[in-house]
Amino acid sequence: MTPRPLLADAAQRRVRVLDQTLLPTEERWVPLDTVAGVAQAITTMQVRGAPLIGVTAAYGVAIGMHADPADAALDHALVALSGTRPTAVNLRWALDRMARVVRPLPPSARGDAAWAEATAIADEDVTTCRAIGDHGLGLLRSLAGAGSRPLQVMTHCNAGWLATLEYGTALAPVYRAMEVGLPVHVWVSETRPRSQGWLTAWELERAGVPFTVIADNAAGHLLQRGEVDIVIVGTDRTTRMGDLCNKIGTMLKALAAREAGVPFHAAVPSSSIDWSLRDWRDIPIESRSVEELTPRPVPGCNPAFDVTPAPLVTGLITERGCCAATEAGLHSLFPEVR
Amino acid sequence: MTPRPLLADAAQRRVRVLDQTLLPTEERWVPLDTVAGVAQAITTMQVRGAPLIGVTAAYGVAIGMHADPADAALDHALVALSGTRPTAVNLRWALDRMARVVRPLPPSARGDAAWAEATAIADEDVTTCRAIGDHGLGLLRSLAGAGSRPLQVMTHCNAGWLATLEYGTALAPVYRAMEVGLPVHVWVSETRPRSQGWLTAWELERAGVPFTVIADNAAGHLLQRGEVDIVIVGTDRTTRMGDLCNKIGTMLKALAAREAGVPFHAAVPSSSIDWSLRDWRDIPIESRSVEELTPRPVPGCNPAFDVTPAPLVTGLITERGCCAATEAGLHSLFPEVR
Repeated sequence: MTPRPLLADAAQRRVRVLDQTLLPTEERWVPLDTVAGVAQAITTMQVRGAPLIGVTAAYGVAIGMHADPADAALDHALVALSGTRPTAVNLRWALDRMARVVRPLPPSARGDAAWAEATAIADEDVTTCRAIGDHGLGLLRSLAGAGSRPLQVMTHCNAGWLATLEYGTALAPVYRAMEVGLPVHVWVSETRPRSQGWLTAWELERAGVPFTVIADNAAGHLLQRGEVDIVIVGTDRTTRMGDLCNKIGTMLKALAAREAGVPFHAAVPSSSIDWSLRDWRDIPIESRSVEELTPRPVPGCNPAFDVTPAPLVTGLITERGCCAATEAGLHSLFPEVR
Repeated sequence: MTPRPLLADAAQRRVRVLDQTLLPTEERWVPLDTVAGVAQAITTMQVRGAPLIGVTAAYGVAIGMHADPADAALDHALVALSGTRPTAVNLRWALDRMARVVRPLPPSARGDAAWAEATAIADEDVTTCRAIGDHGLGLLRSLAGAGSRPLQVMTHCNAGWLATLEYGTALAPVYRAMEVGLPVHVWVSETRPRSQGWLTAWELERAGVPFTVIADNAAGHLLQRGEVDIVIVGTDRTTRMGDLCNKIGTMLKALAAREAGVPFHAAVPSSSIDWSLRDWRDIPIESRSVEELTPRPVPGCNPAFDVTPAPLVTGLITERGCCAATEAGLHSLFPEVR
């Protein structure tokens, strides 16, 4: 079990989140007790990571319904929260689910029901991440046989417990490996411009997992030189065809992994799958402020995500097991989705 | 014509260099008048860029011979300067050439001869870069016909005039394009961990060339989305087979360019070709301090270069013309080399 970056206070109907913009320098918890506060925390990336954004937004709706259960307040909360980040689909998924549960109820019942549903989403996230960890652990075990060195896992950005409620997605197999005594070492990419790699380093250090931080530019070199056994990344949105939209730079690692013959996997909670999407070109790519690159006033361009087309992906690790990054692969695990 | 980052003072037998560790924030010129000072300036990257390192080291030998023309002093200068940076071959090439000219002479003649030879190396660098610019301009012209937008050139690190004496290598075609009125726009990769992309931005801004800075991670996305017409990079060492050793991260751009069907070229002054090397695995890769990544004490790994194998390279732009990145291609332009 890992720590949590969000603590829900049912009595006060508020949550506290670890401010991820201050890590790894400072650990400060921020109370969120208004819809505007929750939206602001997501926009500024105090809270980040697709699964955690979904959970936090769900609590945002619950906080809003506690303050004012009227239809107008519900609409306002859904609009305010859905406008925070455009790319991750978990956000939309969580808000749709909250609306589906809350809207049919009389206003007097909405506060309690919304809090219960947000809690259910949070609990399911824990279960999902733990299951991804177990399925990914099987994958790591299958690769660990050969060498005498610890299994060398490369990741990108932060898809650990800071990005979820517990365990994380891409790092869940790593934490499970630690728990069962399988030696692992993680190559942590800095992940400019927001440097979420330092969040990953901070997480791994706390958990006692050996790691090495590298510049994003060094990933290809390490893969080429045989220093990596497997790449595991998260995903902010997955098409039904198995294409991944994840933190900018992910695709470069996928290309380098293929070139080096190293397996490249994504940890995919089903809440990140956009079953309506066949063509990855239709995924909106969030463009963030150039100030994330530099405080100097120069022309810049700062896309926050890129797409790794499915043919570059060796496999997907979902809460129901591993599959090929294809429509048939996903369908085999989620046959109920048409 | 572009400015120069190194000014030689023949009367004083010293050089002044623009301190590139302070750019783009501050323009400070540093006088170098001892071998130790020159070596230090190269090691700390006040002076950087394979061609400029070669020229500066040549002047370092000349400065040393002016102070003390004895054999022991020559040996000392060659050892001190060759130990500064292991990867770029221009450094070794320039020192070998200086030794070849200086060593046979009586000590009394060495000071003047060494200065003259260093000046010749500097002058040839200017001629070489200008020729690379002209040959590269032909390449840009051949690509510019189709679209109505300015030609979109992506580069990596800094291979402009700051890395040479004038024009640069990878940027020489861009500067020549500006001179002849061919519209270009340059995508500038930040180039962590040393962020030489900001040197490129500074150079281009001074020259009035439109540019956009991006995180290294964004290169693949832009290539995938059709925003780039050609990638041009420099090289610190080129094998006789056409493999490139260049700033860490270069290979990731080559992989993404191939995936997107975008031509990927290297600007290769012949002084950067290591004719003795057939296997790129034999190139020593400089490993630099983890403090370049972060001041925090965490486990890190900081290789400064990577290798782009020749099959990923569309072509080479040398001072004698363009060729395929193959042994036959290079041999066709440099038939005198066995």
